[in-house]
Amino acid sequence: MLPIALDAMGGDRAPADIVTGGVRAHAELGLPVLLVGAAGSIAATGANSAGLDVLDCAEVIDMHDDPATAVRRKKDSSLVRAAEAVRDGRASAMVSAGNTGATMASALLRMGRIRGVARPAIVTPIPGLGAHPTAFLDAGANAECQPEWLVQFAQMGAVFARSRYGVDRPRVALLSIGEEDTKGTPLVKEANALLRLRTGDDFDFVGNVEGRDLMAGGADVIVTDGFTGNVALKTLEGGLRAIQKLLLGAMTANDELTAAFDVMWPALVPVIEHLDPETTGGAMLLGVDGVCIISHGSSSPTAVVNALRTAADMVEADLVGAIGKVIA
Amino acid sequence: MLPIALDAMGGDRAPADIVTGGVRAHAELGLPVLLVGAAGSIAATGANSAGLDVLDCAEVIDMHDDPATAVRRKKDSSLVRAAEAVRDGRASAMVSAGNTGATMASALLRMGRIRGVARPAIVTPIPGLGAHPTAFLDAGANAECQPEWLVQFAQMGAVFARSRYGVDRPRVALLSIGEEDTKGTPLVKEANALLRLRTGDDFDFVGNVEGRDLMAGGADVIVTDGFTGNVALKTLEGGLRAIQKLLLGAMTANDELTAAFDVMWPALVPVIEHLDPETTGGAMLLGVDGVCIISHGSSSPTAVVNALRTAADMVEADLVGAIGKVIA
Repeated sequence: MLPIALDAMGGDRAPADIVTGGVRAHAELGLPVLLVGAAGSIAATGANSAGLDVLDCAEVIDMHDDPATAVRRKKDSSLVRAAEAVRDGRASAMVSAGNTGATMASALLRMGRIRGVARPAIVTPIPGLGAHPTAFLDAGANAECQPEWLVQFAQMGAVFARSRYGVDRPRVALLSIGEEDTKGTPLVKEANALLRLRTGDDFDFVGNVEGRDLMAGGADVIVTDGFTGNVALKTLEGGLRAIQKLLLGAMTANDELTAAFDVMWPALVPVIEHLDPETTGGAMLLGVDGVCIISHGSSSPTAVVNALRTAADMVEADLVGAIGKVIA
Repeated sequence: MLPIALDAMGGDRAPADIVTGGVRAHAELGLPVLLVGAAGSIAATGANSAGLDVLDCAEVIDMHDDPATAVRRKKDSSLVRAAEAVRDGRASAMVSAGNTGATMASALLRMGRIRGVARPAIVTPIPGLGAHPTAFLDAGANAECQPEWLVQFAQMGAVFARSRYGVDRPRVALLSIGEEDTKGTPLVKEANALLRLRTGDDFDFVGNVEGRDLMAGGADVIVTDGFTGNVALKTLEGGLRAIQKLLLGAMTANDELTAAFDVMWPALVPVIEHLDPETTGGAMLLGVDGVCIISHGSSSPTAVVNALRTAADMVEADLVGAIGKVIA
């Protein structure tokens, strides 16, 4: 396999934690990794990156840069170079924990779209009560959508669920404000009608679901526009964080409780890990002509390892080729 | 105070739990309650409703009825009669745990709108890390919105936060997918510009917030369209339920853990109650010419008591008059 281009400069704790993650993925999983970033900064992390190739570049797109402008102007940035490495056949996939908008723009402008794809979409795995996470898209690439795009999101999401979770015939649902086909915005009603026509080809359309179904595990794929998707996803994130804070505060309020908490803690860790976005391998931009993983800005080395593993899995499953076939 | 019209027939456990809640609110809080429903069914609950007036009616709108059709056809239903009682000056407010759409339609068609209000909106209190809940609207009355309506939602939400939480100068935020004014859909961008113009009159506009801010307590009021609002609210509900299930399972997986859990449980109850929508007194339809409380379908007697108390508070605070002044 060609190496996976890892944007060493993107992320809250870049380059140190990113490079460490790359080194670990190489050492523990044998994954070929191409570190993209300023060679001096990478060396200064002190991580033992002896076995990894480095693609040296001078610029960095940071979290505050305007994505479109940054990708146009910072041609020697790690993000742009990582996307070019995939385009030019030097890398099999790209992974970045940097500026999400700029990651999308780099991938879109340098790799281009898969033929027939109207708009790429971000798919995010939502862990919950199901046997595997639910593939949720669009998580924020397209604030406004056409009904036809949501049908493509369903097709791409189904390919993803098949590759990632081994679901033979993914159940696809449409996010709305009631289960009835007649509820929701014009976008939702038209998308519902189109999905009813397309069900059975690549996926089973199981109808509309509500926000309360996102973690219920009743669908393999849930599609929505990028505005609603982003709000819902961040609502879940914020909700989890608030509850965690309230519960931890209550569970350690005095010595007796803290003693009980110490007994409890090892049992809680797997639940917290199960719900942690870091363990799911990050979000992915579907519809561009290459594998592009968008990791959380706060990615730890472990999150980077998981993202690289997911990238490798998606390359080996030929996700891009499979989407091309379904869309064509 | 005129009695509060309580729809005895609406709710998953109606009429028994609803009537019990009405009886308790009367006995414990001295609230005047008008039970609206089939006198026979109310009597059959066995609740001691001796001190309460009953407005006898023959029909019931159930959860599966189409709201508009049901309100038009079932003229002698408890929901329609409850709204008429407010309109006719027989009651000061209405409370229902029944069909949400039909509750809105009854209130809108029988009470009418406050002069100048373009569209009524559902406000829902979201508990979280703040000193009081955040007033969140529109939680589902209007799937599609105009930018000007969101400004009215901000005004009405500010009146609500002032009456309900005693916030002198409510901080109002707009839900979006980034904090920058330039992010989001055209609706969000236009609403942002209008809110910037109106800030300072009745509220302080603090800009855009993201889904992760809903429970953070950084704003007193958060406005959005009814589609996004409904999705976000139900996403939180479902998320809380899923986490509760996962945590409870982990915390009682064996005898040692269960023993620790028994120590912990009394400390967890206040957190669970804090997050429970039942304790916040239910949602409210703002903009109609009367106080209308929309309770959760699963309302227990305690939830009914809280809803009746909230209704009485909002009548005494003259919420409707205050909204009229701000909108005019």
